[in-house]
Amino acid sequence: MNHTITFQPIGHVENEFDTPIAPDEIRVSESRIILDPGLVAGLTGLKPGRQIMVVFYFHLIESYDLLQHRRGDPTQPERGVFTLRSPSRPNPVGVTTVDLLAIEENVLRVYDLDAINGTPVLDIKPA
Amino acid sequence: MNHTITFQPIGHVENEFDTPIAPDEIRVSESRIILDPGLVAGLTGLKPGRQIMVVFYFHLIESYDLLQHRRGDPTQPERGVFTLRSPSRPNPVGVTTVDLLAIEENVLRVYDLDAINGTPVLDIKPA
Repeated sequence: MNHTITFQPIGHVENEFDTPIAPDEIRVSESRIILDPGLVAGLTGLKPGRQIMVVFYFHLIESYDLLQHRRGDPTQPERGVFTLRSPSRPNPVGVTTVDLLAIEENVLRVYDLDAINGTPVLDIKPA
Repeated sequence: MNHTITFQPIGHVENEFDTPIAPDEIRVSESRIILDPGLVAGLTGLKPGRQIMVVFYFHLIESYDLLQHRRGDPTQPERGVFTLRSPSRPNPVGVTTVDLLAIEENVLRVYDLDAINGTPVLDIKPA
């Protein structure tokens, strides 16, 4: 099972958050997902007003610990990384369900995405 | 955004399904997730009886269409791949929430996982 798996992003996130901040702060904002224009046909039938699942790559993460404090709060007991949503994990993949506000060509406007500006997007699925 | 993203599996799926079958058939079975033994500390605090989200790689997928019939049924209208859960997608990632039945060392027994035998697992998250 030690083979490497490779992906190419299908697009990226644009918003005003250029540096990592607390996820709670990111989630109250609107973001745009800029899809590769060659993949726009893949949105056929997608309707604003529904929710979508966004799979993305925490591209700034360079390391992880198997045991972490929840939300980085040292007053919390350490727990296994697989019990946490921490971005610092063996494969730094994020999965978030968001409200789809609008679709304009290859741009999806979404609400509640906990990803910073420039985040590579790996997949979009029905929620 | 055209950089390649690479992952190493954290483990793999074991069950009786060696070849792709309809997802509806797979979901009624029990599977084992065999975690890399070196990552077992990452399970600390995980409790059977709860649900976990499993992120995995559809390792047999070699191509995709941007427009597909739902569940491969030609009587259904074609829809964009991002509105479907089809495994044939630009980045063949699966995300499924399953019941965690038991944990024994590095083996997680789960119910309702729509992945075949040998499927590489990329991540485990709280559901």
